Amino acid sequence: MPFNITTVVFSKLQTLFTSDHASVVSLNLFVALLCACIVIGHLLEENRWMNESITALVIGLCTGVIILWRSGGKSSRLLVFSEDLFFIYLLPPIIFNAGFKVKKKQFFRNFITIMMFGAIGTLISCTVISLGATYMFKEMDFGSLDIGDFLAIGAIFAATDSVCTLQVLHQDETPLLYSLVFGEGVVNDATSIVLFNAIQSFDLSDINFRIALKSIGKFFYLFSASTMLGVFVGLASAYIIKMLYFGRHSTDREFALMMLMAYLSYILAELFYLSGILTVFFCGIVMSHYTWHNVTESSRVTTKHTFATLSFVAETFIFLYVGMDALDISTWRVNDRPRTSLMVSSILLALVMAGRAAFVFPLSYLANLSNKSSSENISFREQIIIWWAGLMRGAVSMALAYKQVMELGQTELRKNAVMITSTITVVLFSTVVFGIMTKPLIRVLLPHPKITTSMLSEASTPKSSTMPFLGSADNSFDDNLGAAHRPSSIRELLATPTHTVHRYWRKFDNAFMRPVFGGRGFVPFVPGSPTERSEHNLLHKESSESDVCNF
Amino acid sequence: MPFNITTVVFSKLQTLFTSDHASVVSLNLFVALLCACIVIGHLLEENRWMNESITALVIGLCTGVIILWRSGGKSSRLLVFSEDLFFIYLLPPIIFNAGFKVKKKQFFRNFITIMMFGAIGTLISCTVISLGATYMFKEMDFGSLDIGDFLAIGAIFAATDSVCTLQVLHQDETPLLYSLVFGEGVVNDATSIVLFNAIQSFDLSDINFRIALKSIGKFFYLFSASTMLGVFVGLASAYIIKMLYFGRHSTDREFALMMLMAYLSYILAELFYLSGILTVFFCGIVMSHYTWHNVTESSRVTTKHTFATLSFVAETFIFLYVGMDALDISTWRVNDRPRTSLMVSSILLALVMAGRAAFVFPLSYLANLSNKSSSENISFREQIIIWWAGLMRGAVSMALAYKQVMELGQTELRKNAVMITSTITVVLFSTVVFGIMTKPLIRVLLPHPKITTSMLSEASTPKSSTMPFLGSADNSFDDNLGAAHRPSSIRELLATPTHTVHRYWRKFDNAFMRPVFGGRGFVPFVPGSPTERSEHNLLHKESSESDVCNF
Repeated sequence: MPFNITTVVFSKLQTLFTSDHASVVSLNLFVALLCACIVIGHLLEENRWMNESITALVIGLCTGVIILWRSGGKSSRLLVFSEDLFFIYLLPPIIFNAGFKVKKKQFFRNFITIMMFGAIGTLISCTVISLGATYMFKEMDFGSLDIGDFLAIGAIFAATDSVCTLQVLHQDETPLLYSLVFGEGVVNDATSIVLFNAIQSFDLSDINFRIALKSIGKFFYLFSASTMLGVFVGLASAYIIKMLYFGRHSTDREFALMMLMAYLSYILAELFYLSGILTVFFCGIVMSHYTWHNVTESSRVTTKHTFATLSFVAETFIFLYVGMDALDISTWRVNDRPRTSLMVSSILLALVMAGRAAFVFPLSYLANLSNKSSSENISFREQIIIWWAGLMRGAVSMALAYKQVMELGQTELRKNAVMITSTITVVLFSTVVFGIMTKPLIRVLLPHPKITTSMLSEASTPKSSTMPFLGSADNSFDDNLGAAHRPSSIRELLATPTHTVHRYWRKFDNAFMRPVFGGRGFVPFVPGSPTERSEHNLLHKESSESDVCNF
Repeated sequence: MPFNITTVVFSKLQTLFTSDHASVVSLNLFVALLCACIVIGHLLEENRWMNESITALVIGLCTGVIILWRSGGKSSRLLVFSEDLFFIYLLPPIIFNAGFKVKKKQFFRNFITIMMFGAIGTLISCTVISLGATYMFKEMDFGSLDIGDFLAIGAIFAATDSVCTLQVLHQDETPLLYSLVFGEGVVNDATSIVLFNAIQSFDLSDINFRIALKSIGKFFYLFSASTMLGVFVGLASAYIIKMLYFGRHSTDREFALMMLMAYLSYILAELFYLSGILTVFFCGIVMSHYTWHNVTESSRVTTKHTFATLSFVAETFIFLYVGMDALDISTWRVNDRPRTSLMVSSILLALVMAGRAAFVFPLSYLANLSNKSSSENISFREQIIIWWAGLMRGAVSMALAYKQVMELGQTELRKNAVMITSTITVVLFSTVVFGIMTKPLIRVLLPHPKITTSMLSEASTPKSSTMPFLGSADNSFDDNLGAAHRPSSIRELLATPTHTVHRYWRKFDNAFMRPVFGGRGFVPFVPGSPTERSEHNLLHKESSESDVCNF
């Protein structure tokens, strides 16, 4: 009988939402600040140093100072951070939009590399940070940290925030780099959250080989079940909208259904104790591949922009909040020795940098080994950018830190305070200092971004209209579609599976999936598709089938 | 120092949003039900009897039965209705979209009639219901109702819900009728909420002439201040977007700013203790007249559909909830005599019908007196439709009833139970029974809807392309624009002010407003404008100024 509890839970809403004028005041302030962030972010768009995240953080900090002063040094926040508010309302639109906008072709072509960086890399990073923290913090005295705490610290600081870097890189100028940084960012978010939940749910007092194996098994179960759920909900939405042909009566119904089903995929995953973040990401991918092509033109434009805007507002909201929260006196006060806190933060920052270096360069070497063509290799300069892109820590780290503090309970105030203050310091420092350095660094490392030749010179021929999807170095792929690949070297051997899988997937998609679930079908290019930004003039009506699909 | 309280208020969020699996269950169920409503509503689109509201109500009822059975007869609800959840999150998008979509030309041309129906009519209706209830309920014994309670009952049951009727009427077939029913619905919502708040805030123990005069003064202050705030925020958004030219960098920023500023107008009004509903309505009108024309094409499509969809989902949510809530045992149990409850509900339904008849027919007569041309008269059949359109009671009545119950406190359980159960009965009965009868009734009364001749026959000439805006009987208006109107009869005398005001407004708009705030400017027609639905082929590039604007 879960419904009795439910009524009780929601009855709290009633006491919460009573017409309290104070909550109207803070709601006003928050919405006004969001508007200010948007306007100022727009004005600073062409600024060399700033970006949207830093703007929101700085505005949050300034507001925090004002509130602190108004309240007589008591508190700097308008609302207490709730990690569930974050995980239930703010994160889903961000991740869904990531899946909806990801260049599927690039993503799946680099699938293995992205997975290496995102999953194995995060594990390596988490291990390095955990071990480093265990070793370094042993001498300091801030409560007794056990192995679970150290692993949690590892998971918290393994969660990267690549927003800063993505605002500087461009999908069309550096498609490979963009797709690697973007893909890794999404997979990293998912991995660190799954990892963190796994660490919290296991009994870590006695670890043995069987439990470790069980953990790995559970990790893979979570990963595959979440993915399948996302794909299932996405396909269901495509099927329903295609079968019932909603556009016939109302654009708004299509849009509402897409939005609600996307959100449904996330909360269904939460219902089954899966990873909502992975589910909603794959739901986004499937929706942009099938559902999005089944709706009317207006719905396409609307969904594309609305999902992007929701994601953008949620991100701004988070940074605004983190900035405001940074000055909160109550957490800083408990932590009586600021020198300790500063040292802990510095150590963590160093560990973050080391942990990331420990996997970016070795894994890039491995990825380069598996590439057929040398033009697809990740150069050393690009490796530095990938390394740099993951140094910033953001909202996910904050949310996980708060979750860990909740778990520990109010009794262990000292440990909590260290955890929160050091997380805030690392997030603030990395976002502002590293963030400001990102634009100049990338300008130095990539002075003349490689423009894909196909985009500039061959854009007028129908065949090449699909080239931007295929990436800059994909010349041999489509031509060889019919011929069987014979692996002749270790590179070929490593590269073949991805290409073969992709080829079979395309055949399967055309033969079985599209007739049922709709999707792009035989139109070579859809202008304004959610994954495209600048190829608005490349519409060609030829229904040449083989070089069409980008999934 | 309001910030201390604020922190305390929002700290409740923390306890509320703890990862409670039960709340995830109900969230899932709610989102799934919303999806079901959309799909079923789509399938029943062409059904003769049903509409979206009834579908949502019936699905809510069925779910309520299942939950009641699952919980062993304890409760039928997933979440306790919070009138602040309704007023802060669900109502603003509905009203904003109403303002955004209203045909401004029609609305302002019929401004006086609409205001008569919406404001004076609601006052008459409220008075009739209050007096009737005072007279009829004196003999029954369900706690002591004082004059404040009777006035509250009047305000609660004066709030109409014209959604059912608007789903059947068409803006292009019957423009006058549509604009009257639509405009009255919006003004009525605002009036009854303002009225209710006024009744609650006054000390009604001793009423004298001075207090009554003061009340009327306060009512007008609320009305004008709220309107001005809405216009101000709308103009501010137009100015900011025009000056900074957001489209240059990002469509999403424009959209985010429009959405946030629309919501800001609502909560700013709440902050200053004004009527948010009026503010957001006029903000919507100003935004659709100025701001909407300053943004990029994609933003236009996106905002138009997103606002409509949000409004649609909020409406569905409300009806779903009302259906689920109807069976809630706890309120029915306190009310031990079901016969009393039934009698009260029947009396209230009769009073609602009488109260509406008491103003629709007299005010229609007055409106007909003031019309220049007989073709703009409201025929008796149309009067019946207007009367019928306001018989349904919906979400606003429910929300006001809950608010009244909160005000009374938990001590007066008997009085509360009667109030809630009778409101639920009236809402359910009127929405389902009257709602089902709406489509057939309108088919009988308007067997061949007047198609405006200008739409069909003259659509190919540039001049007539603006005719749909002007309404079917507006032939003499534009031609006489330059000539001075000399009032020659009582009709002319009554009709002149509106036309003159409109003419001066257009001149003022062209000379001063548009250069500053943007807006449509000199383009005769913008296809797909939020107020237009079916004239997609009428784009004419002539910049003929005088017959252009529709404000």
